[in-house]
Amino acid sequence: MSEKAAEPRLTVRVLTLFPEMFPGPLGVSLAGKALERGNWALETLDIRDYARDKHRSVDDTPFGGGAGMVMKPDVVDAALVAARRPGSRTIYLSPRGRTLDQELVRELAAERDIVLLCGRYEGVDQRVLDAHAVEEVSLGDFVLSGGEPAAICLVDAVVRLLPGVMGNEVSGEEESFSSGLLEYPHYTRPAVWTGHDGMARAVPEVLVSGHHAKVKAWRLAEAERITRERRPDLWRKYEAAKSVSARGLD
Amino acid sequence: MSEKAAEPRLTVRVLTLFPEMFPGPLGVSLAGKALERGNWALETLDIRDYARDKHRSVDDTPFGGGAGMVMKPDVVDAALVAARRPGSRTIYLSPRGRTLDQELVRELAAERDIVLLCGRYEGVDQRVLDAHAVEEVSLGDFVLSGGEPAAICLVDAVVRLLPGVMGNEVSGEEESFSSGLLEYPHYTRPAVWTGHDGMARAVPEVLVSGHHAKVKAWRLAEAERITRERRPDLWRKYEAAKSVSARGLD
Repeated sequence: MSEKAAEPRLTVRVLTLFPEMFPGPLGVSLAGKALERGNWALETLDIRDYARDKHRSVDDTPFGGGAGMVMKPDVVDAALVAARRPGSRTIYLSPRGRTLDQELVRELAAERDIVLLCGRYEGVDQRVLDAHAVEEVSLGDFVLSGGEPAAICLVDAVVRLLPGVMGNEVSGEEESFSSGLLEYPHYTRPAVWTGHDGMARAVPEVLVSGHHAKVKAWRLAEAERITRERRPDLWRKYEAAKSVSARGLD
Repeated sequence: MSEKAAEPRLTVRVLTLFPEMFPGPLGVSLAGKALERGNWALETLDIRDYARDKHRSVDDTPFGGGAGMVMKPDVVDAALVAARRPGSRTIYLSPRGRTLDQELVRELAAERDIVLLCGRYEGVDQRVLDAHAVEEVSLGDFVLSGGEPAAICLVDAVVRLLPGVMGNEVSGEEESFSSGLLEYPHYTRPAVWTGHDGMARAVPEVLVSGHHAKVKAWRLAEAERITRERRPDLWRKYEAAKSVSARGLD
């Protein structure tokens, strides 16, 4: 473990009704070690602390009727005012938001200060999102019980890109999505492995050939094959980008 | 809190090198209460317990060279054999997998037994994935430090659909994605709210009109507008589905 960094490169402030969920998985492994070393800092604010009435209520029934409760604008407003700093990037985790991808992760890893608003119930009063010009980010087209699990994924993805966090363990060049392709298959010892089903499985011969150029070509071909088979959407983008770069800047 | 269910509707077995990450956020709030009530059960298996050598090593360098380490096939095989039951649905969280969406969440919520394999480092030896015909599921096109945060999101999304978990809090009908549209905006009291910026913001008049049909029409129009503006991909699918249903089954 290296010594504590002088100042965290990134501060994340999470607004949640369930502060006990944090740091949770972010306190363990790669993100947890980086947190200990001070590469990044995490502050958790309990939205309920910003409730003003004696019942500390944070939600109320929706105007227009319907199931579920909506988080109150005054409470969320006070919490956001407390959490935000000049230059904070303020994100509400919501299925209506811009879909998180590695490009957005890289963008967020360049920030110094991120505020994450985690909603529960049916969501947050629209007016407070408008008042703070909050950016909405979605993890994907599925529904979670709240923004917290999404916030954990977002932070995990961002923190691993901060300087000093991964060290030389993984080269950015070889990562999923940086090339626009899904990753090629990985293999490790033993070269011939016999599994629970009694079947012996050998690694592809080229990988033990010691021929670096052939290994590289095999890996690219595999990444292309897997992307083509599994993700026609990524494959089309990859082919389009390839043909642009082949044509040069004409 | 209701009494403990006789038998959990779903058992999730997580294979991880960081068992201390579980239940984590899944032990709190909606998923946590459902876990306490016995609607679902969670077992965490430490992959390191299945290492066979005296150093308990779980990874090794990749054949063909390159950065990072690969999880050993023999160790993961033994862990999978221990975790799987007849009829288990076995999922490896991986950016190469089928992208998680609400359709897949619903599919998984119909299962009785799910095994989630969480990878770390560069990933898992391909042969063990082949040997168990493991299904790969991706949370989205971004890179996490490991499968654990993704597993937490997947389980959170699945558990909330289990019978008895949400009660009547939220109607499935009104949820994001069930209609193919993003959600309309929500509003709650006060009807006129003055925020930190001193600006008074009123809720849309139709929502306080008491006119249910107009409220419904406004919400649909807002959901359509937001989807069209933010997610042209969902919008195209929605329009295609609408024109099919308008044409009937011809």
